[in-house]
Amino acid sequence: MGSLDSNTPTDHAAGQFSPLDPEEFRRQAHQMVDFIADYYRKIETYPVLSQVQPAYLHSQLPQTPPYRPEPMDAIMKDVQSQIIPGITHWLSPNFFGFFPATVSTAAFLGEMLCTCFNSVGFNWLASPASTELEMVVMDWLAHALKLPSSFMFSGTGGGVIQNTTSEAVLVTLVAARDRALGVHGIDFLSKLAVYASDQTHSTFSKACRIAGINPANIRSLPTSVEGGFALSPAVLRSAVEEDLAAGLIPLYLCTTVGTTSTTAVDPIGALADVARDYGVWVHVDCAYGGSACICPEFRHHLNGVDLVDSVSLSPHKWLLSYLDCCCLWVKQPGSLVRALSTNPEYLKNKPSESSSVVDFKDWQVGTGRRFKSLRLWLVMRSYGLANLQSHIRSDVRMARMFERLVRSDPRFEVTGGKFMLRFAVGATLTEERHVLAAWKLIKEGADGLERS
Amino acid sequence: MGSLDSNTPTDHAAGQFSPLDPEEFRRQAHQMVDFIADYYRKIETYPVLSQVQPAYLHSQLPQTPPYRPEPMDAIMKDVQSQIIPGITHWLSPNFFGFFPATVSTAAFLGEMLCTCFNSVGFNWLASPASTELEMVVMDWLAHALKLPSSFMFSGTGGGVIQNTTSEAVLVTLVAARDRALGVHGIDFLSKLAVYASDQTHSTFSKACRIAGINPANIRSLPTSVEGGFALSPAVLRSAVEEDLAAGLIPLYLCTTVGTTSTTAVDPIGALADVARDYGVWVHVDCAYGGSACICPEFRHHLNGVDLVDSVSLSPHKWLLSYLDCCCLWVKQPGSLVRALSTNPEYLKNKPSESSSVVDFKDWQVGTGRRFKSLRLWLVMRSYGLANLQSHIRSDVRMARMFERLVRSDPRFEVTGGKFMLRFAVGATLTEERHVLAAWKLIKEGADGLERS
Repeated sequence: MGSLDSNTPTDHAAGQFSPLDPEEFRRQAHQMVDFIADYYRKIETYPVLSQVQPAYLHSQLPQTPPYRPEPMDAIMKDVQSQIIPGITHWLSPNFFGFFPATVSTAAFLGEMLCTCFNSVGFNWLASPASTELEMVVMDWLAHALKLPSSFMFSGTGGGVIQNTTSEAVLVTLVAARDRALGVHGIDFLSKLAVYASDQTHSTFSKACRIAGINPANIRSLPTSVEGGFALSPAVLRSAVEEDLAAGLIPLYLCTTVGTTSTTAVDPIGALADVARDYGVWVHVDCAYGGSACICPEFRHHLNGVDLVDSVSLSPHKWLLSYLDCCCLWVKQPGSLVRALSTNPEYLKNKPSESSSVVDFKDWQVGTGRRFKSLRLWLVMRSYGLANLQSHIRSDVRMARMFERLVRSDPRFEVTGGKFMLRFAVGATLTEERHVLAAWKLIKEGADGLERS
Repeated sequence: MGSLDSNTPTDHAAGQFSPLDPEEFRRQAHQMVDFIADYYRKIETYPVLSQVQPAYLHSQLPQTPPYRPEPMDAIMKDVQSQIIPGITHWLSPNFFGFFPATVSTAAFLGEMLCTCFNSVGFNWLASPASTELEMVVMDWLAHALKLPSSFMFSGTGGGVIQNTTSEAVLVTLVAARDRALGVHGIDFLSKLAVYASDQTHSTFSKACRIAGINPANIRSLPTSVEGGFALSPAVLRSAVEEDLAAGLIPLYLCTTVGTTSTTAVDPIGALADVARDYGVWVHVDCAYGGSACICPEFRHHLNGVDLVDSVSLSPHKWLLSYLDCCCLWVKQPGSLVRALSTNPEYLKNKPSESSSVVDFKDWQVGTGRRFKSLRLWLVMRSYGLANLQSHIRSDVRMARMFERLVRSDPRFEVTGGKFMLRFAVGATLTEERHVLAAWKLIKEGADGLERS
């Protein structure tokens, strides 16, 4: 562990508090770099899942903040002894839970730069580079995914970085909602109906509730083992027809490319064909699954994307970008801006009023926003599409190896049934040996079950 | 500028892509530390406001991402030549626009740690330390602000870190909304009415629109020069009575301690007294103003806070914490959880089901969340309340010095009128000499106007 020495007490003693002295910054940040590099070096030595009990930390820390400064060295000792034992090590190569949250040196450097500038890019003028680099990077990633130009700034659409999928769904839902209420009137809010499969992430119904959609009109459409847990266009059509007959207004469909429970892929083209018949906004949530589509051999999962209204993908899941970073592309940025724009006196400025620039505050929930595109920019430039593709392919190869291991043992099956082991390969540091070790552990568990 | 060398090509050539090699990380991150320290050292040499024209970056960057990796050295040259000219330098000591976004070495180190662990603390189990340190730190800051124990985990309430004030307002508004609709039924959504003064940040009406509040029922109550632009309890009462008479349901009042345009302070105790008569949820937005209340001599601005339902304060504004970090305290966490909880199969776990732990995903819009409390923890421990207080006092002292300068020149007045110069002191690096230089510039502008 790097040693982060105390704040120079002379500063404080002299009555001069200097919270950002460049040389003090340099000294302490170098020590932090060593601490972090050492953590990454020995990450395999920690248990992946934290072993602490609820409220473990409460008794170790004082109830009130200190009045006097404490030396950084003492704080970092507490990080090692109090914080790290309570961490579930998402970056461990032995992490196969939930979904991976992948990382890289380039993204870390980008995050450092983002923090360094601390520029608050709510509108163009507040920091032009922040807005303009985001526009470039969103177009870059759209190109890598072969999205149609209707989603690019260089075409007729555009993209924006949100924090998480929840916000991407929320803002597009609000855009669709306000478009519909503009036609029908505010009193029809409780008549709006929304659609997704029963495999859709829970964040969808949560976003609907936040946006004031009547909970009774949030449709969770059934899927089946036989249908690969994908949403059927026929099921969608009949649900929409039923709602229309009941006097409701079909509003929004959330499709998924890679569901959380079973990695199912909805047939987005066929579903969008149905939705178009009823003027329903179609969103594609490909939070992790979309990343695979930078490889030509997986791109077919996005077939039909040219027919939808919006797409969200979180590079913090599978494109090495650290949390949080969710890319949202829309065909009609104007629909977002109409629903989310604010124009207070204290933010008025010439470039915004001339409409010659993009003001990203009108594309998101919040006002303030960080310079997040730096992370993605560094990842894409520093590694190139070639390495990003090989990273995806390596994970897929390891997952297939695991599948072969499971199939080779008659006591296991690759499941289509109801209870299952969910094994998610993809942590940045995972190599074949970690997958093999996990399989050994699972087999030992099965051995134990057989003996008992 | 530090030199960040190319990725080791041997890795790629060998077909082995290693995006998080600890020694490569160490080497490149050390170089980035030097780059950033050098940037902070020379930050005064940059024009505060970026001088670029709209679309300046578009022509400098390729339209598509690179296929092959590029050396980090080349990327950092572009940061210097293409990105930095497009940045409005919020950290410059000569930055007196908008509101300051303050920073510190300790917060930077905390952000590096947060990024390092990349733990995704949506529920307790996903990373216990992330949840528990946040609980401790939220209580610490509540203590520093002398909030009543009804807002603390050690009492009967609790706090959570949101990204921005917008989200803090949105989630409390949704909690209040769903509490009301639970009584009246979903069909009354368009009858709910919300209140704030005409000085309230635009983010309030935006949050209301997102939550599906009828735009016709968003009251922007008048304030006056004579009243110091504070919201009058009598004005509130008459607006609420009028809405009741019209068959509406008064729902939510957003008060402000330190408005954006004129730093007005609403009398929160007296307003809460009115609101309580009608069962209206009262929120205090003290995004920047609340930070001053860690000093006993300014604490009176929060008098009456024991009567409200929720309070939000953004340490990224005036407590040295970098973006984004908005602390939200609520008296009844259960009301947030009822409105925002999700419980999908893939996130079920024993600690959550036993209700022995807090799952912060149910206190916010998104699911995923970063380990943000590390930043605040390092700031509070590394500097101590003593230094944080002296930081606030130093800014106030400089603002008063500027006021004296203005009063000493008969051509200017400290305004209560309609058009004004807004001069916001508080960037981390600002010293008296920067304020004096800005005043010299303003006087020269006035000289020019007089001559013309």
